[in-house]
Amino acid sequence: MRFDIITVLPGLLESPFAHSILQRAQRKGLSEIVVHNLRDYATNKQKSVDDYPYGGGSGMVMSIEPFAACIEKLKAERDYDEVIFMSPDGEVLTQSIANHLSSKKNLIILCGHYKGIDQRIRDIFVTREISIGDYVLSGGELPAAVLVDAVVRLLPGVLSDETSALSDSFQGDLLDAPIYTRPADWKGHKVPDVLLSGNAAKIDAWRDEQALERTKQRRPDLLND
Amino acid sequence: MRFDIITVLPGLLESPFAHSILQRAQRKGLSEIVVHNLRDYATNKQKSVDDYPYGGGSGMVMSIEPFAACIEKLKAERDYDEVIFMSPDGEVLTQSIANHLSSKKNLIILCGHYKGIDQRIRDIFVTREISIGDYVLSGGELPAAVLVDAVVRLLPGVLSDETSALSDSFQGDLLDAPIYTRPADWKGHKVPDVLLSGNAAKIDAWRDEQALERTKQRRPDLLND
Repeated sequence: MRFDIITVLPGLLESPFAHSILQRAQRKGLSEIVVHNLRDYATNKQKSVDDYPYGGGSGMVMSIEPFAACIEKLKAERDYDEVIFMSPDGEVLTQSIANHLSSKKNLIILCGHYKGIDQRIRDIFVTREISIGDYVLSGGELPAAVLVDAVVRLLPGVLSDETSALSDSFQGDLLDAPIYTRPADWKGHKVPDVLLSGNAAKIDAWRDEQALERTKQRRPDLLND
Repeated sequence: MRFDIITVLPGLLESPFAHSILQRAQRKGLSEIVVHNLRDYATNKQKSVDDYPYGGGSGMVMSIEPFAACIEKLKAERDYDEVIFMSPDGEVLTQSIANHLSSKKNLIILCGHYKGIDQRIRDIFVTREISIGDYVLSGGELPAAVLVDAVVRLLPGVLSDETSALSDSFQGDLLDAPIYTRPADWKGHKVPDVLLSGNAAKIDAWRDEQALERTKQRRPDLLND
């Protein structure tokens, strides 16, 4: 699966894509993540990619031309399933959207910055707008990294343990049960006896009960869906 | 405002904190972001920070000792307002939580990885659990970066234009109106006439109407709150 990410801050995305699961997925050839510097597509002498908003107001607006040039170049090279704009106005990312996107082949992701991007980029090129949550960030770069991480870890072969992704929170609409590891007693704080019992059926029943209980307490909305 | 972030992947967080607004906030002395390598607090010879889960199951569980050692060292140096664990089980981050946290002085943020962290870390040390959204990621590092970004940009003096943070989406419970910049005509796609009219009252009215319309269409839930 290929991601083409267009940003004015390619350096910001260097370390998130060079570690952990995203690094492994690329090394294994399961995913290709290409970051494009929007400034390389600026057409004027100053290499500027933004300008003042029409109608006045604070902040700078990202211009249509550099995005258009980059997107058109990419589209001439291959077909894309979606051109995604990371935006607080978009549909809020859920595990089901991540699952859906993990079946795609090529995605373009646009990162906004400053006050935002010229509306015509959204009207003409963007096929999907995604928000990672109801809060404001400095730009679309971290949201793009979050989206790529959520999707790439679902690709077959990326996680070392195939069962891990399936038993994660949200895949079954319940939060995870509490987990413990050694030592069994840390300064008087003990691991629940049942987990040390060796009785697999009891352990499964306890985990199901705890997962349900935790979901009821913390996220009853997940049960009502 | 100071953030102490505890992680097994300090390198993953290098570039997000070295660019843009987070870089500027640190250079101006408005924010201090310290990343701690959890492995430095491992007590055994192998420098391991995780172990198999009690009761069986897939994935590794992060042990209590290294986290405890790092948290206790930090707490001996200064007082902390919260010890936050980034977790899909936590309360979902909103702009109002970000606003609230921006009034704090010192925060510790724990990043989980692998299957999760020993429940006793949460029971004993963690005062608040925050999720950035209902989807599963490889670890708490990107969520920690998102949280820090959402909070730091609210600190007085961080944004170059003080009005920018206040007019962002979510601060007024409405999405932003569409924005445009030059050229006024891009291959036949034109900027709305009103924005070129120079009539400030008309422009304001149009923007209010567009913001309301966009919110109604895309996020009616924001209007019902």
